[in-house]
Amino acid sequence: MPDAPLDDLIGLLARLPGLGPRSARRAALALVRKRRVLLEPLAAAMADVAEHARECLICGNIGTSERCDICTDPKRDPTTLCVVESVADLWAMERAQVFRGRYHVMGGTLSALDGIGPEDLNLPRMAQRIADDSVTEVILALGATVDGQTTAHYIADMLEDRGIPVTSLAQGVPVGGELDYLDDGTITAALSARRQMR
Amino acid sequence: MPDAPLDDLIGLLARLPGLGPRSARRAALALVRKRRVLLEPLAAAMADVAEHARECLICGNIGTSERCDICTDPKRDPTTLCVVESVADLWAMERAQVFRGRYHVMGGTLSALDGIGPEDLNLPRMAQRIADDSVTEVILALGATVDGQTTAHYIADMLEDRGIPVTSLAQGVPVGGELDYLDDGTITAALSARRQMR
Ligand SMILES: [Zn+2]
Ligand SMILES: [Zn+2]
Repeated sequence: MPDAPLDDLIGLLARLPGLGPRSARRAALALVRKRRVLLEPLAAAMADVAEHARECLICGNIGTSERCDICTDPKRDPTTLCVVESVADLWAMERAQVFRGRYHVMGGTLSALDGIGPEDLNLPRMAQRIADDSVTEVILALGATVDGQTTAHYIADMLEDRGIPVTSLAQGVPVGGELDYLDDGTITAALSARRQMR
Repeated sequence: MPDAPLDDLIGLLARLPGLGPRSARRAALALVRKRRVLLEPLAAAMADVAEHARECLICGNIGTSERCDICTDPKRDPTTLCVVESVADLWAMERAQVFRGRYHVMGGTLSALDGIGPEDLNLPRMAQRIADDSVTEVILALGATVDGQTTAHYIADMLEDRGIPVTSLAQGVPVGGELDYLDDGTITAALSARRQMR
């Protein structure tokens, strides 16, 4: 059995998403073996994040100040608002390096199963931003799940009388995806959204 | 894109075994969300382990002092020595709560592929302990892999002239294992080590 401090570390590591008890033990041993190059820097990085990370008051992104780098970037178009479920999804969009507007993080999706209603999402702030920033398009970049699509329809209905386009990401075959590996729903969506090529 | 401190944290988390870039990002977000209950305790636990964890000078286990809890426990029989590849394997043996002797951590196995020879393992110290503690049985609890078994045979040969039993863990069907899910090698080993039941 590991000694007490190591046991505490393993118990905490096992609470991270993606790490079970077994991988937490392996991670803890790797940390002890790589004390100078991994354990000490990681402890310092965590202390740093604990002290400095905070939620952007405008969009809900995680940054180090009250307004995140995206919300304060004058080169990002404030009139195009991309609505995402989570900060992880915001990062995924940013990695694609294709969107130059601003974001709004909902903090989840509507979910009857999990008892998440409209009042649990960051909706009033979104409505406020759309008015304040004279938003001309709202892009709903929500997951192609039942809850994601329910949320997308809810927001589209909510914004109906604003008179601005509300769009959503296309569903279809992922780039590099082989049809053989796709579920029926994706193939159905890709077929019904088929585009004319010539 | 995450801000700099969070980016550092994600980069370090991604170097843990079992965490790729994607799960490192998810883990970092979970840490930020659970600052008080997860991030701060984890940073503290890591600092604690960085300061206190050390290798037992006798057996190679990880503990908080020069001699680990097992090596200093008078109730553990020093004349039965269980040889394991790694500290993770020592912990696995301890979880089974069935062995009451002491351990010796080799720090790996012989591996032609990885260029690991006898001089890279903790062998001289093992030989010394066998003599000093009047060891009466050496149990080789090494993996049922080619390298593990090569190492077991090497150690058995090395200890041939000591005149003490050198045993190894039985190979066979794991408890709860269904034959349908086992590889051929395990079935072969289980069959050749079959036991008479009546
Ligand atoms: Zn922001
Ligand atoms: Zn020890």
